[in-house]
Amino acid sequence: MDYGAKSIEQHKKLKGKIAILSKDKLDSKEKLSIYYTPGMGAVSSLIAEHPEKVNDLTWRNNNLAVISDGSAVLGLGNIGPEASLPVMEGKCMLFKEFANIDAVPIILDVHTADEIVEAIKAIHLSFGAINLEDIAAPICFEVEERLKNSLNIPVMHDDQHGTAVVVLAGLINATKLRGVALKDSKIVIIGAGAAGVAVANLIYKYAKSNIVVIDSVGIIDKNRNDLNPQKQLLATYNQGDYLNKPLSDVFKDADIVIGLSKPGLLNESDIKLMNKNPIIFSLANPTPEINPEDAKKAGALVVATGRADYPNQVNNALTFPGIFRGALDHKVKKITDEHKIAAAEALAAIVTNPTAEMIIPSILDKNVVPAIAAVIV
Amino acid sequence: MDYGAKSIEQHKKLKGKIAILSKDKLDSKEKLSIYYTPGMGAVSSLIAEHPEKVNDLTWRNNNLAVISDGSAVLGLGNIGPEASLPVMEGKCMLFKEFANIDAVPIILDVHTADEIVEAIKAIHLSFGAINLEDIAAPICFEVEERLKNSLNIPVMHDDQHGTAVVVLAGLINATKLRGVALKDSKIVIIGAGAAGVAVANLIYKYAKSNIVVIDSVGIIDKNRNDLNPQKQLLATYNQGDYLNKPLSDVFKDADIVIGLSKPGLLNESDIKLMNKNPIIFSLANPTPEINPEDAKKAGALVVATGRADYPNQVNNALTFPGIFRGALDHKVKKITDEHKIAAAEALAAIVTNPTAEMIIPSILDKNVVPAIAAVIV
Repeated sequence: MDYGAKSIEQHKKLKGKIAILSKDKLDSKEKLSIYYTPGMGAVSSLIAEHPEKVNDLTWRNNNLAVISDGSAVLGLGNIGPEASLPVMEGKCMLFKEFANIDAVPIILDVHTADEIVEAIKAIHLSFGAINLEDIAAPICFEVEERLKNSLNIPVMHDDQHGTAVVVLAGLINATKLRGVALKDSKIVIIGAGAAGVAVANLIYKYAKSNIVVIDSVGIIDKNRNDLNPQKQLLATYNQGDYLNKPLSDVFKDADIVIGLSKPGLLNESDIKLMNKNPIIFSLANPTPEINPEDAKKAGALVVATGRADYPNQVNNALTFPGIFRGALDHKVKKITDEHKIAAAEALAAIVTNPTAEMIIPSILDKNVVPAIAAVIV
Repeated sequence: MDYGAKSIEQHKKLKGKIAILSKDKLDSKEKLSIYYTPGMGAVSSLIAEHPEKVNDLTWRNNNLAVISDGSAVLGLGNIGPEASLPVMEGKCMLFKEFANIDAVPIILDVHTADEIVEAIKAIHLSFGAINLEDIAAPICFEVEERLKNSLNIPVMHDDQHGTAVVVLAGLINATKLRGVALKDSKIVIIGAGAAGVAVANLIYKYAKSNIVVIDSVGIIDKNRNDLNPQKQLLATYNQGDYLNKPLSDVFKDADIVIGLSKPGLLNESDIKLMNKNPIIFSLANPTPEINPEDAKKAGALVVATGRADYPNQVNNALTFPGIFRGALDHKVKKITDEHKIAAAEALAAIVTNPTAEMIIPSILDKNVVPAIAAVIV
């Protein structure tokens, strides 16, 4: 099926994917008096005296904002806020359908870290949590850090941490199949954007693996002098000397490749250089770095993509609904590395007998959200 | 009934009054592929190439934001953003129930005109229209003016214009009953906040009536030297000399009083000074300036309040749903004085035979929204 054409057709037909629902009918003067004037004045007065009651009396106990400036949308790049709106709305649809969270898409017409932080701080009291989305690196790091430090609600950049959690979950099961522990595996990450940085950080936190990351310039090595602070940290995750070395040096003894970049950046010849039965996560969306069939042909034991139409969909849609469901339910104010690792383990544990075609549960598996939500405490 | 207690009870039970609705079920991999990845990429790419298509493909064609900083909430005053959230949510419930508009409550944690304007500009692309709400005068005037001039979507401060439209509609029918035309009536307006200013402006625009406005200092007279630009304009709406005069001078030959202030600021003795069979709109919410029974006892021919539990509910809930329904349906970019006057006339015309107890339709009357929407073109 041509999903793109079908998607455009459905979006036109439905005119968007979400709507507002009123929780009661307003079909009598009595109900108007209760929900609007004069009754509502008492609710406002109560909150004015007891601000902590606002979540008991408004939809804020169960809502969040999905916020983007449209600067790094899917694999499409900086297509601007309006073109990002269908993605944000889609995310809100997933939040509702999978976790019963009332998520509102907010697209920003500002793009510097200062402006994004100020805009979100100005509106944050409207929401119980903030899901940052599709904001380009490195601004996304500063924006998330500043908001986490200044707001009293959970803030998570899903492209970073939702991805990191699902990748770690997938690796936990894939390495079981392969028989070499994650801590003993050499991992190559292609792409040092938001997802690449967060995936490297979380795997290193979890397993202290040997991790080599490749950005658009080449291999990230501690002796490169063009590295931002995030990449300087990544460079410490291996003891190799990769300055000005060819990429083939990296693949030679690697066990795992994680593609978080764009189509074409991983080839059969790269995979053939790797250790036997390698694990290939080719997660560029909507088009993976390498076609799964080609990766298998080159010798991969386990192949994962971000798409629904291949086996092993390693997609953050498996993680963000449960993480925020747990944060809202358990009044968690900050989502920590410990939360993320617990979420990855809980997600991996749902698949009791992993196989090469099934290292991760389906996004449609009803066990996923409650299992993750239970550990975000 | 104690509507306040009942309202608190219902808000606790429902945990807010609105929720998000997904327009389709996500119950298959195929639907995930259509609404999320990989299909959605085509929708974003299409909008990136043809930005004008965003409304055909997202919920923005039918949504708006109800935005407040909580600085002038109901008759409660500056109770802050969180305490205003139930009011904003209530407004969104009315938008959905009466006009099928998907309205999102946004409360702002900033309070200067510059900050409010910047925050709204930053998020405005998320919405098809902006309903400003419960922002204190005089900041509300500057905020609305600047946003109307800089954004390409309808922006309306409902406390001003929604109120002005419903008051004008009520006066059109009430003056028919009394037999003295609006243009020949002397009108006293108590309160020169957002609503008082807009009501005076719209009546003057419509009928060039003799209008005297009272603020917290006293009668607004052209020789007072403490008037802001809005009040300087109001001072030109009468030829009287009211500097340092007692309020009794104003009521003496008045035909109509419109209270837009707070309880206790209109007494039976004031009404007794007025011309025979006066019209009394006592619109402070939730508690009117004077009890309707007392106003009648003092000689009023027609009495209106803002409440659902008395006859003649002159409440902006009669106007904002239809005005924004029309603006969204007809792609109107600016709501003008001509729109407001047409809306008032359309609203008044729904009551074919006005009586003292029925100058305005019920908020529950299904004819109201389509009648108003039809003239916002």
